[in-house]
Amino acid sequence: MRPLEEVFGCCPKGLEEIKALPIRWDRERFAFWLKQDYPFVEALYRYQVALLQDAPQPHRFPLVQALMATVEELDWLLAQGADPQGEVHPVRQEYIALLSEMGALPYPYRLVFFYFLNRLFLEAWNAHVEGEGPWQELFEHWSAPEFQAVLFDLEVMAQGQVEGLDPAVLERYLARILGMEKKTWSLLL
Amino acid sequence: MRPLEEVFGCCPKGLEEIKALPIRWDRERFAFWLKQDYPFVEALYRYQVALLQDAPQPHRFPLVQALMATVEELDWLLAQGADPQGEVHPVRQEYIALLSEMGALPYPYRLVFFYFLNRLFLEAWNAHVEGEGPWQELFEHWSAPEFQAVLFDLEVMAQGQVEGLDPAVLERYLARILGMEKKTWSLLL
Repeated sequence: MRPLEEVFGCCPKGLEEIKALPIRWDRERFAFWLKQDYPFVEALYRYQVALLQDAPQPHRFPLVQALMATVEELDWLLAQGADPQGEVHPVRQEYIALLSEMGALPYPYRLVFFYFLNRLFLEAWNAHVEGEGPWQELFEHWSAPEFQAVLFDLEVMAQGQVEGLDPAVLERYLARILGMEKKTWSLLL
Repeated sequence: MRPLEEVFGCCPKGLEEIKALPIRWDRERFAFWLKQDYPFVEALYRYQVALLQDAPQPHRFPLVQALMATVEELDWLLAQGADPQGEVHPVRQEYIALLSEMGALPYPYRLVFFYFLNRLFLEAWNAHVEGEGPWQELFEHWSAPEFQAVLFDLEVMAQGQVEGLDPAVLERYLARILGMEKKTWSLLL
């Protein structure tokens, strides 16, 4: 068995680079960046619904909870002024294309990558975003015990799937997800 | 505009017939009937996930809540001893086939039929099932204010979709759903 942490540990440099990005803090700029997040979160919604199509019964409850969080995030982004018809930034387009590519893989890979996405997002978010600001509501949402419990469930589910998967495939996509996270956060440099 | 109630009023006889079925009350028999409900609820889960694929953002929150209720119902049926690999009764098979057929229709029809299914189920359930028994937990679940709110949201959403739909198609499927509900409850005669 190759534990999830071993796969996740493949690329510590990538995550440290993201956390160390010298982001320039500007509330309005960050709010604009968040609004532009809408098309990516919409693509993540579709990725999650497709996961639910193939999820075994024990996986469904946490995945539905995670889907609910995504729906709430889309509502929140709309309330912040996100425009679903707006032009999509090339970096977001590239990340959406990666999601679409991963969406064609078998269920166990898609589940593990969904866990990676959530974990990386949260680690980067916690490193960069302070509790105060126009994103405070979202910050509190991600920090809520309820969502932490969902993440814990995702981790246990991913751990249960990782055995039998090709470590090279896992590491390749993890590196690509890390690359996209770095590009996305770098929009704030 | 043709209001939802007018469509729903097409077949009052069908619903009255279901409510008036002289069901023989036997706890064990009813528990067995409920367990056999598993494959139908599983098919309903798939119908709901497919709805979420096409749902516009304002519809998603209530539909995810309804999906959560279905996942909980599947867990509950498993806890009651339902066997996912068990043989499926021909009446349940027929109802599953109807769900599958409806699943090929455009989103507005599927949404309206999902509302019909929930409403008919609840009306029949309330007419036949008492609060006490092995199904008490489920009974309380359906009667909970939270789920009543979901049903109300479904009604408002269905009302918003019904305009522009072909009343003949709506009535034809409503009559077929009523027919399947009658056959399903008749298994308890």
